[in-house]
Amino acid sequence: MSYQAKHVLQESEVVVGYTTYIELIQDIIAPHQTVIRSHMKKEVERALEALEEAKAGKVVSVISSGDAGIYGMAGLILELLYKNNLEEYIEVEIVPGISAVQAAAARLGAPLMHDFACISLSDLLTPWQTIVKRIHHAAQGDFVIVLYNPKSKKRIEQIQEAVDILLQYKKTDTPVGIVKSAYREGEEVHISSLESLLEHEIDMFTTIIIGNQSTFMNKTHMITPRGYNIHE
Amino acid sequence: MSYQAKHVLQESEVVVGYTTYIELIQDIIAPHQTVIRSHMKKEVERALEALEEAKAGKVVSVISSGDAGIYGMAGLILELLYKNNLEEYIEVEIVPGISAVQAAAARLGAPLMHDFACISLSDLLTPWQTIVKRIHHAAQGDFVIVLYNPKSKKRIEQIQEAVDILLQYKKTDTPVGIVKSAYREGEEVHISSLESLLEHEIDMFTTIIIGNQSTFMNKTHMITPRGYNIHE
Repeated sequence: MSYQAKHVLQESEVVVGYTTYIELIQDIIAPHQTVIRSHMKKEVERALEALEEAKAGKVVSVISSGDAGIYGMAGLILELLYKNNLEEYIEVEIVPGISAVQAAAARLGAPLMHDFACISLSDLLTPWQTIVKRIHHAAQGDFVIVLYNPKSKKRIEQIQEAVDILLQYKKTDTPVGIVKSAYREGEEVHISSLESLLEHEIDMFTTIIIGNQSTFMNKTHMITPRGYNIHE
Repeated sequence: MSYQAKHVLQESEVVVGYTTYIELIQDIIAPHQTVIRSHMKKEVERALEALEEAKAGKVVSVISSGDAGIYGMAGLILELLYKNNLEEYIEVEIVPGISAVQAAAARLGAPLMHDFACISLSDLLTPWQTIVKRIHHAAQGDFVIVLYNPKSKKRIEQIQEAVDILLQYKKTDTPVGIVKSAYREGEEVHISSLESLLEHEIDMFTTIIIGNQSTFMNKTHMITPRGYNIHE
């Protein structure tokens, strides 16, 4: 957590968030602050509740895990503000945080030293064909590829199809990092290869990073060279 | 800055960094800590100095602006550790931070609510043809595109060629965010369009974010919808 995030939270009169994330910041919340908890997949309701509080003149924090600006709550808040013509009445500040990809990368070593593409495999809000197209282009462009939301209890085929597509362009032994719950309880970090990726346990708390042509593994880390000449 | 970053810095006996970045954390450094400053483009020397101190048994912090794990110093340290067979003797911890893209996104609104690709336009360490290929694929895949290192005093043609390529696939009025020195002295935030991007001042402290097909601007923000149905 950043100093800015903690400061903003402490200055808020109302804190709105998904139950699990509220629990993670329980220690920071003071008794005089109003806490509004809501369930998963209730993002729109949660954002609307936050706007109602803000319309009533309250200083409101909306909690997003990782970075609110990367697949987070920032967009929904701004969209609803726009739709309801509230842009000029309610001031919004986006506070950046550590996204899942950065936490995963830090645990794996240095996989993101070169150009990378982030793709969410969740087709709840995006047509699967759009996602497929992006996987093809990210692989053809030799990007390091980060997969968010690779799998859930109900969504199990997307990661299999993604690996099939990636294997059309990338070598079977391309290094792959698999990180579950980075920096949180139950953290698991595995370095594997593209052909063995599916042998690992993958769930909705897992972030997957697939190397580019230059990515390599040493004994303990996954590294994508930046290109410095260190061999002179 | 995160609590983890400050804690790690304060626990260090030696702090190594590029002069400008050392100045930014001057307040945190205590008199008993050894500070090793070095100049720009001396990344390899800086990393080697840090390793020498660590080999001597010191606890060393290497400063990287933004996130050490995104185009930062993490990779070079791990590569040199590997090359010198020091992996089993020196323990390295990567501490994630707020990368330029996140700081820029937070200032612009919510441009990264959907899949995005980060591309550095610096061809100092990467063949320009590799970068060109990635720009083509990122545009064809309709990624939100983030350009790091768009321009320097000596490198001025890359951003022009990048815009020419992007205009082959993206509309002229595609929203573009141009952020200089986010959260730092001299911060500048502009929202423009792809066809007008080059009219803005761009330098080595500038990060550029180019929208996907759905990205739009309201009065104050750049927003890429996540796909929630808020119009029911």
